Amino acid sequence: MKKIAVYTSGGDSPGMNACVRAVVRTGIYHNLDVYSIKYGYDGIINGNISKMESHSVSNILQRGGTILKSARSNEFRTKEGRKKAYDQLTKHGIDGLVAIGGDGTFTGAKIFYEEFGIPVVGCPGTIDNDIYGTDYTIGFDTAVNTALEAIDKIRDTAAAHDRVFFVEVMGRDSGYIAVECAIGGGAEVVMVPETITTSKQVSDYLKNLRESKTSSIVVVAEGDEEGDAATIMAKVKSEFVGEEEKKFKVTTLGHIQRGGSPTAKDRLLGSRSGLAAVEGLLNGKFNCMAGIINDQVVYTPFDDCINKNKPLNKDYLRLQEILSI
Amino acid sequence: MKKIAVYTSGGDSPGMNACVRAVVRTGIYHNLDVYSIKYGYDGIINGNISKMESHSVSNILQRGGTILKSARSNEFRTKEGRKKAYDQLTKHGIDGLVAIGGDGTFTGAKIFYEEFGIPVVGCPGTIDNDIYGTDYTIGFDTAVNTALEAIDKIRDTAAAHDRVFFVEVMGRDSGYIAVECAIGGGAEVVMVPETITTSKQVSDYLKNLRESKTSSIVVVAEGDEEGDAATIMAKVKSEFVGEEEKKFKVTTLGHIQRGGSPTAKDRLLGSRSGLAAVEGLLNGKFNCMAGIINDQVVYTPFDDCINKNKPLNKDYLRLQEILSI
Amino acid sequence: MKKIAVYTSGGDSPGMNACVRAVVRTGIYHNLDVYSIKYGYDGIINGNISKMESHSVSNILQRGGTILKSARSNEFRTKEGRKKAYDQLTKHGIDGLVAIGGDGTFTGAKIFYEEFGIPVVGCPGTIDNDIYGTDYTIGFDTAVNTALEAIDKIRDTAAAHDRVFFVEVMGRDSGYIAVECAIGGGAEVVMVPETITTSKQVSDYLKNLRESKTSSIVVVAEGDEEGDAATIMAKVKSEFVGEEEKKFKVTTLGHIQRGGSPTAKDRLLGSRSGLAAVEGLLNGKFNCMAGIINDQVVYTPFDDCINKNKPLNKDYLRLQEILSI
Amino acid sequence: MKKIAVYTSGGDSPGMNACVRAVVRTGIYHNLDVYSIKYGYDGIINGNISKMESHSVSNILQRGGTILKSARSNEFRTKEGRKKAYDQLTKHGIDGLVAIGGDGTFTGAKIFYEEFGIPVVGCPGTIDNDIYGTDYTIGFDTAVNTALEAIDKIRDTAAAHDRVFFVEVMGRDSGYIAVECAIGGGAEVVMVPETITTSKQVSDYLKNLRESKTSSIVVVAEGDEEGDAATIMAKVKSEFVGEEEKKFKVTTLGHIQRGGSPTAKDRLLGSRSGLAAVEGLLNGKFNCMAGIINDQVVYTPFDDCINKNKPLNKDYLRLQEILSI
Repeated sequence: MKKIAVYTSGGDSPGMNACVRAVVRTGIYHNLDVYSIKYGYDGIINGNISKMESHSVSNILQRGGTILKSARSNEFRTKEGRKKAYDQLTKHGIDGLVAIGGDGTFTGAKIFYEEFGIPVVGCPGTIDNDIYGTDYTIGFDTAVNTALEAIDKIRDTAAAHDRVFFVEVMGRDSGYIAVECAIGGGAEVVMVPETITTSKQVSDYLKNLRESKTSSIVVVAEGDEEGDAATIMAKVKSEFVGEEEKKFKVTTLGHIQRGGSPTAKDRLLGSRSGLAAVEGLLNGKFNCMAGIINDQVVYTPFDDCINKNKPLNKDYLRLQEILSI
Repeated sequence: MKKIAVYTSGGDSPGMNACVRAVVRTGIYHNLDVYSIKYGYDGIINGNISKMESHSVSNILQRGGTILKSARSNEFRTKEGRKKAYDQLTKHGIDGLVAIGGDGTFTGAKIFYEEFGIPVVGCPGTIDNDIYGTDYTIGFDTAVNTALEAIDKIRDTAAAHDRVFFVEVMGRDSGYIAVECAIGGGAEVVMVPETITTSKQVSDYLKNLRESKTSSIVVVAEGDEEGDAATIMAKVKSEFVGEEEKKFKVTTLGHIQRGGSPTAKDRLLGSRSGLAAVEGLLNGKFNCMAGIINDQVVYTPFDDCINKNKPLNKDYLRLQEILSI
Repeated sequence: MKKIAVYTSGGDSPGMNACVRAVVRTGIYHNLDVYSIKYGYDGIINGNISKMESHSVSNILQRGGTILKSARSNEFRTKEGRKKAYDQLTKHGIDGLVAIGGDGTFTGAKIFYEEFGIPVVGCPGTIDNDIYGTDYTIGFDTAVNTALEAIDKIRDTAAAHDRVFFVEVMGRDSGYIAVECAIGGGAEVVMVPETITTSKQVSDYLKNLRESKTSSIVVVAEGDEEGDAATIMAKVKSEFVGEEEKKFKVTTLGHIQRGGSPTAKDRLLGSRSGLAAVEGLLNGKFNCMAGIINDQVVYTPFDDCINKNKPLNKDYLRLQEILSI
Repeated sequence: MKKIAVYTSGGDSPGMNACVRAVVRTGIYHNLDVYSIKYGYDGIINGNISKMESHSVSNILQRGGTILKSARSNEFRTKEGRKKAYDQLTKHGIDGLVAIGGDGTFTGAKIFYEEFGIPVVGCPGTIDNDIYGTDYTIGFDTAVNTALEAIDKIRDTAAAHDRVFFVEVMGRDSGYIAVECAIGGGAEVVMVPETITTSKQVSDYLKNLRESKTSSIVVVAEGDEEGDAATIMAKVKSEFVGEEEKKFKVTTLGHIQRGGSPTAKDRLLGSRSGLAAVEGLLNGKFNCMAGIINDQVVYTPFDDCINKNKPLNKDYLRLQEILSI
């Protein structure tokens, strides 16, 4: 292997830049030529490809977002699009790829590898922590801390007015962000897609609680089966009357959870995963993702990353419940 | 004057605790007995009144919210309610009040003073910066910085995906938070209640801009005449087609802007205003607010605080426009 | 077991309050009476013991320091002191203890258990991450992030003036904080107690580097064998002349690393460890520490916690070296 | 005027980049060609001069440090050096300068103007807030908030161990940073160059205080006449004995105060000052600084900026004293 290229794809996450930097510098360390591709799969197709030097990735470690930009590509979903992409890589002499992203990114990479035999290793870049094959994904820790700081602020104003706040956090079909925020933020209730909690249960719980607590926080994962936070709040609120009813408020944290300077953990994870991806390519580990499990690098086939489920640690739900009394 | 009491009322704001601390300690410094009232005007009516010592306000300077809680009182809007409140104060021997809050708080205080002659001085506690008689209100600087940090994070993800984000910030009928955030966050457009900007103007502006800028931020003040950020975004988006249309996103920052540890400026302003309120009471300054104008304490009659308009500095709008090119 | 008590001892660390809260609420959940002891072992001796309710630990999860205060006790090092302590516990009917702290805390707990048979379970509360029997200690993640934010700020001014900064971080005999900060902060060099790096090596390295980099950061662990950061900087600086010599600066981060609102990770770890400690007591796990290894609760005998060495992951040093090119 | 150039000089401060951006974009708005000069006066001499476009200053508003780098120039202190600088400017056709920095920067600019008639307007960029002609300097608000966050963290650990911390903050000969930190941080004592406070007075004060307070913070301005914080602490400590003596700790915050993302206030001030500097040049305001006094742009002759003293608001010292009881 002589020339490798790196790209980011799908939703951006804090720590992607740390990962890009690690790929570039580890490649140079091993005497590879390293290229960057902008705008993910669209960028391969369009030949948006540049040579990277060590200093090209200076001063990006601490920045959110991705300097390589990201995009979702419709053209790459077609055979013709992928052929164009392959031709571009051939033209540039690129014989290895590092793909930073989530499920969708890896699905593209897997098909591309199977069709054209181009070696690819993935790095788990998503805030959702929903990828099998790694304890944490790059960006998750930052997103949790961002959401937690928001919940701390909301707690201030909730306490001042004896309010019940429903706070919606991200995570797609995963309750990881929600449950870690709920424990860290001392939330009274957490609603995640992995378990069934009805609005009725929540209103009953809050009614009991209102004798011992004047304000409460309910954290709702965006993928919860009961609906979004505003919908759930409306249902719960309808079980209360008079002054009580006025105490309900809802806030949806939104895209602030995707940005911001990455935490130490995400910089470390992005760096380790990026280094492992390049060394994986050099050691013939293709069609797989470089994750960290129990503090060790593990290469997991894309097939497993995409198809296997990463279950929520149920101990966390029990912990949240016991500590919110 | 021998016994004074302090309360917070209306929406909470960061720095209210610094102000409460200053009132308590300045009162003690001047050999007054100082009492706290919880839950604002309702607390006066219900006699929710406690003696404060110097250590009662230890370790609160850095905390958001208000340890005195806040509430909006319907009963105090009635003559009967205010009579009950007056009786409670008489019962406790309280002969002076410090009211921390905004317009509504001062309106209550003014009526109370006029009906019962109870000396009151106000401190401007609101994030909205919409009170005549002070350069800044307590909590404004923190709210702006909180919103700005959120915009910085959103800028990361906007840049990664070449998106246009509409970000709604608080401020009620005032555009202060919006315009300071927009300048600080390098927003491309700001929409405030003080000026007319149509959705059409925004979409035209963004169309021109898209040749030089791939991502943009539009800051919308919650009181803007064109509607809320989601409404405006929908209108603007409808002027774009295809891939362009998918780039629009909206986020409403919500109640995170009310909480959080106060900035240095808000701790200083809360402290100064609290001290000035107590010394105002001791010097016969009643029925007025202790604000800071040009770094000097100024006592402004409640009448003016409530009825006079605090205009937005138009230089700021020009600055935002020039710097967003 | 009917009555348990919890105390914090040794250096404080962010997340100790989360742990205290978890102990109190888990105890109450299991129908135990829970007491708090202030000022660690001195507090046991002096009977500084209070009954805790669920609300006693409200609103402390997000706070640095320890509401139970901490102290180092000379008296507890004597047999007489420990006898007094035992008598106090007997007097209060306390039949189980949770000790939050580090090596010194566990040494005291172990002797106390061996002499008087009082069941104790420990929780690893220290920023240094130097305790065998847990992947991380409570407070470590916060300390790393605090130091990292400081390094990010120093990088700004270092880059503006093309300077070389030596930054000393905490960690006692462990290089964990230093190495995670160095990776996260993109430091050019890291000096830790676990490996030998001479000042001469550092100056040679920096001389080579100055052709490709105009500013640099050297992270020094406080326990490094070459001395403290000021000493090392002086030695390194003496190898440079003229303008080059003026570029060297040193900063010692100091006690800011001990304080601050805990990160999500530290709130989670403190909570899990606190819950596990109480359930350990209930299940006959005495004279051991409740740590988290590979995301599972593990009880490790105090003997091992104290005597076994927790080695630095050498992959981290290699990672730092490769990425600093 | 057709071509202007901007440079930063002296110690860097957060918000300098906001100011650079404002100069560039305001210049372009007024149809000027705008150039940047790197490394301050040395950069003029060496012709380190580049053309700037609007996008050259994209994405720098939120960054600490200065993208134009800074340096102290010995050569510019000589007539020959300044002649070289003038020749470079002539060569590039530059007929106006914006100088961002402090006293030293303005002294250089003034001499340069007087010798060669080159129009210069200054912007007050320094964290020290020691410049006459502006209420605040660019970077001051960020430095105060950074120091304040550090003091909040130190308060956590001070309270946990009942310690007395001496915290040294920056500010050169000015006590502004110290006094605003002390008020915001609830410090028990503040020592500034503008007033005489002896170590003996501090130890007496702390002795009295130790009955009502278990932990204390003493903020020391770096320019205090009693010496640095370590020296003062040693003197104060020597007045205590036994256990009391062990409670004293010192920390010097150092260069973290110079870096970090600027606050909203500093971004606004940097932006306003930069715009005013360019419009000053266009309106014949030379040899002066564009500051903000009472929310209005004011141009103050360099002579006054350099020679007149900016006194500390004594109300602040009284406020600190009353609130620390």
